[in-house]
Amino acid sequence: MSSAIEAITWQNEKIVLLDQTQIPISENYISYDEISPLVLAIQQLVVRGAPALGVAGAYGVVLAIDEAKRKGLSAQELELNIDLLRDARPTAVNLAWAVEKIRKHLPAGRDAVLAAAHQLAREDKESSISMGNIGADWLIKKLGNNSLTLLTHCNTGSLATTGTGTALGVIKELHKRGYVKEVYADETRPLLQGSRLTAWELMKSEIPYRIEPDGAAAMAILSGRIDAALIGADRIAKNGDSANKIGSLSVALACHEAGIPFLVVAPESTVDRTISSGSDIHIEIRADEELTYFKGIQVAPLGAKTFNPAFDVTPAKYISAVITENQSYEIAEGQTL
Amino acid sequence: MSSAIEAITWQNEKIVLLDQTQIPISENYISYDEISPLVLAIQQLVVRGAPALGVAGAYGVVLAIDEAKRKGLSAQELELNIDLLRDARPTAVNLAWAVEKIRKHLPAGRDAVLAAAHQLAREDKESSISMGNIGADWLIKKLGNNSLTLLTHCNTGSLATTGTGTALGVIKELHKRGYVKEVYADETRPLLQGSRLTAWELMKSEIPYRIEPDGAAAMAILSGRIDAALIGADRIAKNGDSANKIGSLSVALACHEAGIPFLVVAPESTVDRTISSGSDIHIEIRADEELTYFKGIQVAPLGAKTFNPAFDVTPAKYISAVITENQSYEIAEGQTL
Repeated sequence: MSSAIEAITWQNEKIVLLDQTQIPISENYISYDEISPLVLAIQQLVVRGAPALGVAGAYGVVLAIDEAKRKGLSAQELELNIDLLRDARPTAVNLAWAVEKIRKHLPAGRDAVLAAAHQLAREDKESSISMGNIGADWLIKKLGNNSLTLLTHCNTGSLATTGTGTALGVIKELHKRGYVKEVYADETRPLLQGSRLTAWELMKSEIPYRIEPDGAAAMAILSGRIDAALIGADRIAKNGDSANKIGSLSVALACHEAGIPFLVVAPESTVDRTISSGSDIHIEIRADEELTYFKGIQVAPLGAKTFNPAFDVTPAKYISAVITENQSYEIAEGQTL
Repeated sequence: MSSAIEAITWQNEKIVLLDQTQIPISENYISYDEISPLVLAIQQLVVRGAPALGVAGAYGVVLAIDEAKRKGLSAQELELNIDLLRDARPTAVNLAWAVEKIRKHLPAGRDAVLAAAHQLAREDKESSISMGNIGADWLIKKLGNNSLTLLTHCNTGSLATTGTGTALGVIKELHKRGYVKEVYADETRPLLQGSRLTAWELMKSEIPYRIEPDGAAAMAILSGRIDAALIGADRIAKNGDSANKIGSLSVALACHEAGIPFLVVAPESTVDRTISSGSDIHIEIRADEELTYFKGIQVAPLGAKTFNPAFDVTPAKYISAVITENQSYEIAEGQTL
């Protein structure tokens, strides 16, 4: 890659975040050495993406310790600050998971906590590399073509993880091996993670790309322009049904119709084996305003109701394979991950 | 309906247009009595929709005659003004078709021209009523349910025609008969005809509705929320393949998968029997800026390329029926309209 994208790093005893609310207009890095502004940054989506939030939580525990020492806070005040960090976004399970995992190292001292946070970040980065290799191997074996046009939905890259990404990590690995002709990035309404974030990552990675409206994906696929589609996942049920950003299901249906591979790429921690099928996955319904306003501009009648689910569930029968850092799963009917 | 929406009317020897660029923010009517500002209005999409543009062209010929008389223009200058009107939007075939049709009445005098324009507008309005009845009869016969949740894409109502509309005309007729529970309106990226125009028409018609991102249509349909989907068409091939606003194909695929009716509603003049299949339909590719900017706000990397087709083609095999003002066509494989 021509230039590394790092959503979150630990530099000079501070957390440095790439401000994702300003991309693609500007590339600003902001340093944090206290809990309160870090919590605000998480809430305002300066950093987003479950794995990236986990790493922010892990390093945040180190900040909390340093801030407590500097300000002479009590042990109780330190624990309270860590709680605030953990609860910054209650729905982002990785954040709470990482904060609690790292907090356990408190009795061993500040350096042990920092070492544990570094370890968590390293594992996240390595997971991307492994998914990238397994996914690239799978697609090359299946398609055996070094001029692939790929389609992706939402943002699943370096801005959502601390590594190269999940689905976008596979695309980057394929590019490194010389297999990528072009990437079609769905703009991903309503929050435009595709045109704002994925397009920016592809540009930075010098991978040829186009942005398309989500509604154009079916035409792109059925007209023969696309060789394979790759998406991430927010939760994968035991039978392979996969919840991902709204619009993923349409891509899957078109790939199924066209007979081209549709891959779901996500770390093992996304597979929820306590859930037997997609019908058990709770789907978050988001605010009307995401659709009725655009950056403050009204684009619908006042008081318009919406159907604005954050995710849809793609049934396993439309998924060619689920790629994790451990292996590729091709799930036949009646089988489980 | 509680209040009539009239995209274009002839009042006090002037053309009155509802300014569609301002909907849903405000409902402004603008009067035109000269060709030059009317041409600009057509180019700036103050009026849009092929049938509505046809009526604007028809009455525009009357304006040209009146303006020529008032300003003492020569016969040649009058013909030139009519040419300007005809060419205001070269891709809108109905505009040129209507201007030329009405221009033929020039030798018979101004009143004959006005009568011909009124006749064209009347026929367009009647065509909506007929499509509404045939489409409503078809759906009631098929579904026999007086609590239908319907899905539509783009704007096909009173803002695109001079009547109640094509697909939206059928929905309004079903509502009049008490059959409509709710309408899901795809927002229709990139130009948001769904959230800006269709939602506004549904609100004015007091029909319960929701706006959804185009990418949510598949989930709405496959989760059992939708009973049938209805769209318009820009061109229908002899075998039934139908070109319509980008995103229509995704809706069709999901309906096919869910086993619910997918209707295409359009006047007979949209059926192009010189074209044997959808692969012969030329698809307009529009500007990158429609996707990379939103009302002047940059939402993608500078210089981003796009895939921005205005239309996609739904193969006849996914269309339950084509509804015109003459009849409903259920096209079996190998058959033609």
